[in-house]
Amino acid sequence: MSIDAQILMALRSAKNGGVSGADLSEKLGISRAAVWARIEELRALGYDIQASPHVGYKLVSIPDVLHADDLRSRLQDVKVVGRDIRVFQETTSTNDVVEKLARDGVKEGAVVFAESQSKGRGRLGRKWVSPPGKGLWFSVLLRPNFHPLCTTQLTVASATALVRAIRSQTGVQAEIKWPNDILICGKKVAGILTELSAEIDSVKYVIIGIGVDVNLQNSDFPPEVRNIATSLQVESRRHVNRADLATAILREFDIDYGRICAGQFEKVAEQWEQQCSTLGHNVCIRVGDRTVYGHAEALDTDGALLVRTQHGHLERIIGGDVTLEK
Amino acid sequence: MSIDAQILMALRSAKNGGVSGADLSEKLGISRAAVWARIEELRALGYDIQASPHVGYKLVSIPDVLHADDLRSRLQDVKVVGRDIRVFQETTSTNDVVEKLARDGVKEGAVVFAESQSKGRGRLGRKWVSPPGKGLWFSVLLRPNFHPLCTTQLTVASATALVRAIRSQTGVQAEIKWPNDILICGKKVAGILTELSAEIDSVKYVIIGIGVDVNLQNSDFPPEVRNIATSLQVESRRHVNRADLATAILREFDIDYGRICAGQFEKVAEQWEQQCSTLGHNVCIRVGDRTVYGHAEALDTDGALLVRTQHGHLERIIGGDVTLEK
Repeated sequence: MSIDAQILMALRSAKNGGVSGADLSEKLGISRAAVWARIEELRALGYDIQASPHVGYKLVSIPDVLHADDLRSRLQDVKVVGRDIRVFQETTSTNDVVEKLARDGVKEGAVVFAESQSKGRGRLGRKWVSPPGKGLWFSVLLRPNFHPLCTTQLTVASATALVRAIRSQTGVQAEIKWPNDILICGKKVAGILTELSAEIDSVKYVIIGIGVDVNLQNSDFPPEVRNIATSLQVESRRHVNRADLATAILREFDIDYGRICAGQFEKVAEQWEQQCSTLGHNVCIRVGDRTVYGHAEALDTDGALLVRTQHGHLERIIGGDVTLEK
Repeated sequence: MSIDAQILMALRSAKNGGVSGADLSEKLGISRAAVWARIEELRALGYDIQASPHVGYKLVSIPDVLHADDLRSRLQDVKVVGRDIRVFQETTSTNDVVEKLARDGVKEGAVVFAESQSKGRGRLGRKWVSPPGKGLWFSVLLRPNFHPLCTTQLTVASATALVRAIRSQTGVQAEIKWPNDILICGKKVAGILTELSAEIDSVKYVIIGIGVDVNLQNSDFPPEVRNIATSLQVESRRHVNRADLATAILREFDIDYGRICAGQFEKVAEQWEQQCSTLGHNVCIRVGDRTVYGHAEALDTDGALLVRTQHGHLERIIGGDVTLEK
């Protein structure tokens, strides 16, 4: 772990107290002058660190920036998701960056954030607006040892992780629109883009791309989506710290990924079914050139949606564009 | 098309007659001296081109080399597969090269051959021996507009194309071992490695890697596979021209790919079922950590194998390691 991350971790674990420069110096094995220099660097990044003779250094507030070392230091407890974190100022798309890492053999659990994306994308190559500093745009690399068919399980896990993290960080109750959208009051606040590289019967790697509209104003959205998109700030009426939200999402996702790898997808599916606004409704689903009408009944063990069609039989849908029917 | 390819095409279409230097010069818009220079180059590559004052130039025999322009000129009639051909002297794996082309946006139908591969691979990263000049090691880029589940259809199509091409070029009747091996008298002569890049419900691209042991001697195989592997030369007891075989495979595959894109997979499946040694037998299939025992009954519309298990129900298998049971 970097010196910065160690300093931030020490300041955090001190909670309301402070840490003396002497303690930090001893703990990190660097001089007190070097400690002071690092603290100055962190202040320049926006970390509000007070210093007083009796209390020592004290972390008062953190800035709304994504700092790889800091995020990493806050995720000491994760098993896989988030054990390697990289933050880019700008990328084409974080999924593209992670794909390169995957091909280079990087281990699963790596997460790439970008402060902005020049070519952010949603499903089927649709454009995803990702203005600098206002959202979370990131991608997670996974190498699950399962059949390509099970990949939908990971979309399900990331969706329910998003809902739990949004709830804990903002108090807002979001809902899942199958398969890959997170809505608040019917408006889209986050999306998931799952991409996989596979042989016929085994996954090489899966990339889960996640975009969350955190602190966007209504005016940040292109006119054509303003009525159907929203942000956490708009819905909660307060600024949301992105680093706090990011660590919450990764920690929740790590828990569910662990469940899936242990063959306990049903535990993930249970939560998902409670959070999903698609289940129990009549839906119209476009799958390629085909349209399926029916009643969304349940999720199956691969994460596919089971739809009872007009003709009475149960159809298994893996992906598509869902519209709720009245 | 290159000048070389045009010359070879003109010589081929003359069949038993010849083509005069004057005709070639006029047709190609280059001087007779330039025609002569190109002919010399082709001779240097091993093309046996005779010249006589009355008959003109005449193609007597072609060398056992893979010449991109020549292959291309012989595949004028294909719709997709083989309309862009590239030949490398050596690559790591032709699937890797095609993956790069795919990411660069190259159109479907591109085919990459390598005279040898330093890291040829089979399913699940298994090593594939590919000594220089003795086999066909190539990969095809496809961008089918269908669900990832349908990808198995392409493995099926390439398998049956291989069987037909081997039959027409060598007279030998090969058989298909589901899902991706081609056998002659129970020994493996060719293999197919299907890799895909996809979103949850749509394919971005599929790479079909094909390896055919054409003119390998028994001693070319590593000792550990000598009893289970064979080559077309060993089985047919004659040297097989690789360019002839390559064009035959690509032409057959192009026909079946056209059928699949037109929604007529059942026509491909029909041939496959006749050529498949797995159907009608009791099989043991390892799928990841699981083992399925049963009777291989049929192929379904996605190319999956339908196996009647010991418990009487029909299981749908997408991939795995098959062993025939006595």
